[in-house]
Amino acid sequence: EIVAAIEAALSPTSRVLAGRHVLVTSGPTHEPIDPVRYIANRSSGAQGTAIAAALASLGARVTFVTGPASVPPPPGTNVVPVETAAQMLDAVRSAMPADAAIMAAAVADWRVVSSSVQKLKKGESGPPTLTLAQNPDILATVAGLGSDRPRLVVGFAAETENVVENARAKRLRKDCDWIVANDVSPSTGIMGGSENAVTLITPQGEETWERMTKEAVAARLAERIATVLS
Amino acid sequence: EIVAAIEAALSPTSRVLAGRHVLVTSGPTHEPIDPVRYIANRSSGAQGTAIAAALASLGARVTFVTGPASVPPPPGTNVVPVETAAQMLDAVRSAMPADAAIMAAAVADWRVVSSSVQKLKKGESGPPTLTLAQNPDILATVAGLGSDRPRLVVGFAAETENVVENARAKRLRKDCDWIVANDVSPSTGIMGGSENAVTLITPQGEETWERMTKEAVAARLAERIATVLS
Repeated sequence: EIVAAIEAALSPTSRVLAGRHVLVTSGPTHEPIDPVRYIANRSSGAQGTAIAAALASLGARVTFVTGPASVPPPPGTNVVPVETAAQMLDAVRSAMPADAAIMAAAVADWRVVSSSVQKLKKGESGPPTLTLAQNPDILATVAGLGSDRPRLVVGFAAETENVVENARAKRLRKDCDWIVANDVSPSTGIMGGSENAVTLITPQGEETWERMTKEAVAARLAERIATVLS
Repeated sequence: EIVAAIEAALSPTSRVLAGRHVLVTSGPTHEPIDPVRYIANRSSGAQGTAIAAALASLGARVTFVTGPASVPPPPGTNVVPVETAAQMLDAVRSAMPADAAIMAAAVADWRVVSSSVQKLKKGESGPPTLTLAQNPDILATVAGLGSDRPRLVVGFAAETENVVENARAKRLRKDCDWIVANDVSPSTGIMGGSENAVTLITPQGEETWERMTKEAVAARLAERIATVLS
């Protein structure tokens, strides 16, 4: 890591993102059921953290909005910890304007309507029914910001079937520029693991990258982002 | 820590639990909604981990059945990682017989009936309704084991109101010997924090301990357990 840092510092292409502000979201969100229970997405935050670190190493000023992740946030970034999707949306709005937004967080699609202030008791009447409501769509919100829209908005699609097809549709539906799609079926070992196998979907087409470490995915993605922004 | 370990090794009261087998459960359980979403209880696993370490330092053979915790499991114990309440019950049964069972895990009371093999899509029809079912009651199961019942069964009660009253009722309902009760209201900072403030409820009455580190709670509790078992 030290050698890599020195090489990067000496490289003529280093710091190509100096002066750029990039927003990265990462980790899961936790949606409370009551003070001790919650609904969440599985997400270690490893891929988002690696991307933020890679962008910072290219000289970008990085705002890192993170849900409760299981890996520590990257040094040298402005870390904004949040818990719920609603809090993440607020933090993302506050981070604007940005030159690029890399939305790697696994935001819970639903929250529990009227979560309880006190711990729910098991009681005699059996389990409660959880009424869910749609959470705000943070990716679509950022992609639709109009004059405040970052020049590059990158979404992520974690799928378990029809990965590329679902991701291609998501790119159009959200009006974002790129989608980084991956297959998170438990058999892949990608969720919670050290490697990732992604397909990058852009208006120009699709590229499937070989399976590599999450740090290598981050480095390659950061270089691609730098090509657009610099 | 090294000094403490040397002191413990030289102390005449050390290894008072040599030859005893103690089961400790710890951490949350995660109950899947689909491959990427789950319901969970907030629990870092810090208190259960500290208790297992304290018991091991007194010479006990410790089986440590842990859900996905955010702190590493204690060295010198037999670690059995699980994810759901059903898996935890299986692991607990397999760990029997034991001289004592310290049930510190924050087991999810409910699981999702017929969780989905594929990731649920947001779809047009709005959020899904989650039908919940009662999970097995691991504490009551262990306390009701009959001739295989550990000599000492200790439950935990994480409450946000009427702490001692709820915990006293829980001790009788579950037929366990002791309950360690605490107030996990967000204002206390106990969940996810380094300190705990507990009330120990036994057939002889209640003791409220001053607020102290989770390690200190663990050490005091381990000494009390040793008094019963040795």
